[in-house]
This record gives sequence, C-alpha cells and structure tokens, in this order.
Amino acid sequence: MEVLVPFSTDRPKSRLSSVLSRAERTAFARAMCTDVLAAVRAAGGEPTLLTTPPAESPADDLDVDAITAAAGIATPPVIVDDRALSAAVNAQLVDRRPTPDEPVAVVMADLAIATSAAIERLLTADGDVVIAPGRGGGTNALVVRDPSFRVDYHGASVRDHRRIAAAIDADVREIDSHRLASDVDEPADLTEVLLHGDGAAAAWLREAGFRLGVTDGRVGVVRE
Amino acid sequence: MEVLVPFSTDRPKSRLSSVLSRAERTAFARAMCTDVLAAVRAAGGEPTLLTTPPAESPADDLDVDAITAAAGIATPPVIVDDRALSAAVNAQLVDRRPTPDEPVAVVMADLAIATSAAIERLLTADGDVVIAPGRGGGTNALVVRDPSFRVDYHGASVRDHRRIAAAIDADVREIDSHRLASDVDEPADLTEVLLHGDGAAAAWLREAGFRLGVTDGRVGVVRE
Repeated sequence: MEVLVPFSTDRPKSRLSSVLSRAERTAFARAMCTDVLAAVRAAGGEPTLLTTPPAESPADDLDVDAITAAAGIATPPVIVDDRALSAAVNAQLVDRRPTPDEPVAVVMADLAIATSAAIERLLTADGDVVIAPGRGGGTNALVVRDPSFRVDYHGASVRDHRRIAAAIDADVREIDSHRLASDVDEPADLTEVLLHGDGAAAAWLREAGFRLGVTDGRVGVVRE
Repeated sequence: MEVLVPFSTDRPKSRLSSVLSRAERTAFARAMCTDVLAAVRAAGGEPTLLTTPPAESPADDLDVDAITAAAGIATPPVIVDDRALSAAVNAQLVDRRPTPDEPVAVVMADLAIATSAAIERLLTADGDVVIAPGRGGGTNALVVRDPSFRVDYHGASVRDHRRIAAAIDADVREIDSHRLASDVDEPADLTEVLLHGDGAAAAWLREAGFRLGVTDGRVGVVRE
C-alpha cells in the first residue's frame, strides 16, 4: 500500500523549543521520520515523503538521504507541495483516487514509537476509512479506500474525519493504539519516546543527554 | 478471569482540583469506575473492587451501590485494605497465587475510555505477565499468570514491571492500546474522555458543562 508521510520543513517541532535548540529540533524531527519510514517499510507499506519546499534556513531542508541512510532503507519518492497539510494531502487523494484495491495511507512523520506491528494493524484493518486517533484529537494515521474522502487536519480532526466519512456513507474503523496515538509535539511526549522507543529518535534523545526522571511521583524527562 | 479494580477514596483525583471541586472529583471518579466495571464485565471479566477504608470525609466513601447501579451490573465483591496500592495488590497476588489456568488481572478504576474490546484484548493476550502501559510510564492494566510476580506501582512502573518479570523469567507481552493507556489524572486527560468516551464519565463531564475547545490549534476542554 502506498503510504504518504507528510514532513514539514517549516519551523520543525517548534513546541519543543523549551528543551531543544532549532538545529536539535531539525535533527530530532529527521530521526523520528527515519523511524516512521522504517516501520512503514517493515509493515509492507511503500512510503512517499510529502514535504514542503526548501526551508528559509537551508539547515532545515529535508535531507532525505540522511533520513533514509539511518533507516537502512532505499530512498522513497519525494513530492514537494507548498500548500498547507490538508490541501497537500487532498491533492494527492484527488490524484490517486483511492479504492479498496488501491488504498492510500497517510502516516505522520513524528510517530516516534510506531512499530511495524502497529502500522501493520493500520494497513490491514478493514474499512473505507481507517483512523488512528492521536492524543488530543488529531489524526495520526489514516487509510483511505474511498475516492471521495477528503482530510481536514485542523483542530479535533478525528471528530471531523468521522463526520466527513459519515457524510459520504463510508464505513469507518478506528485503530486503538498507544504507539500510533503518540505523536511527539511537546516535552511531555519525549517521555513516551524514552519509555517505548527503540529506533533513531530514542537513540538521538539518549545521545543528547535525555533521561527519565521522576518528580512528585510523575515521570518526565531530564537532560544531563 | 478475576479482575481487581483498585479504587482509592483518599484525595480522589487531586490533580483535577484546578477544574473540579472536591465533591465533583469524587462524583467523577465514581463515574469512571462505573465505566471500568461495565467494560470488565462486558469483556467477560469478574471484577472485584479493592478499596481503601472509609475516607476522612464520608462524602468520599466508596458508594459501591451508586457506582454499580449506574452501570446496570451486579454489585461486585469489595475488599478493603488500608495499605498503599502496591502492597494491597501484592497481598492479593500472594493470596490468589495466579497461574495460567487461574490468572488475576488488575485494571485501574480511572480508565474512562476503556472499552470492552480493549479489555478483551488484555484478558485474551498470551503471556505470563501482560502489561498495558499508561501514558507517562504507569501500568494501567495487568494480567498475571505467574505466582511469583509482584507489582511496584511507584514511578515508571512499566519499566519496573518489565524488569521484575525478566528477573523471574516470566514471558511479558504489552498491549498497545490508546484506550488502556489513557488514565485520567490531569485536565488535559479530560479531552480524551470527551473525544472517545461514551459512558458514565463522558456523560458526567458533559452534564457538568465541559466541551471540547480549540486554542492555538490545540484541542482542550472548556467549561461553560
């Protein structure tokens, strides 16, 4: 199955700026993308990177060779689109016209603890539209088998995607996965990477000095 | 399978005190417990409430009849133990000596979006020890089939439970479930209940005026 992996080079992971510098956020975002591409491939998916044009700062540009070399996988196709996420994904859905025989999946590039087993549950689930909800109401991964389905990633998109699917009488399934629900946006999300990650992103964090720490009975991360 | 459901009457849900009064926290904790008991029963489990002695404030006491009447289920057995969570659960494991034929499960009472399907995945998974990790490193649900396994819920317990199981050569499986990972401790967790809950806890929150709201592109809850 073709799997679109959107990766934005515009202000990568800005909500991690309290704990990571700009250059570190770029490097960490690439490491997470490495893990996602590797998990998609291991699950039998064929990833295509859907990215934004070269960034204002060349250091933030998509370095697809670095990303894939770390995963030990072949370089995937890259599509560049300067539109916002929903418009860029919808353009691909219009272009590809997904059907039950030729579905299209969309998997976010910051699912740092996604395993091939979790991606496989997504890709093999029945349903005209299969949704893996993100914590906080996002849609972290999708499979589309209906050519008229469109995405709207703004706000509580999992709710909007349920509605959009219902409006076109598409059968919806949801994948109940902590690994797919855990996109990495904020410092608290790094805890999940250290607890459950075993790929490039977890290795990058450990190398950067991050460790689990317990304060007031709550588990978080500290940087040595 | 016997399923212990620990429910503390001591300072219920204190980390929700910025958004709920003491009486509200008690009522909401009971509603979550109702949903968990109903999901356990629907999954074929036999719940036993493991609770603390009568609270300082009688209003916080376990009101098991109210909890079960709302779920439309028979009143489960209640065990009262004044020790801390780990000691109380370990006393039950010593007493029951779980085996592959007579396993014992432990499911937290604040898994407000746990469905019977998610609990069924837990109860039917193979493994001497089956762990459903909670967000932040807790252990939200467990199945124990080895009489020598003991719990230690302090800190990043999922890591400790992996180690404890390894030390006794017990085979460990983890359940990858967002619904089981989502215990409700902090205001941000209420978002998940409104997005994914369909039981007593979600109804209680809506009745109390909570709605989803989007601020700065992030989804949270507002109270009307």
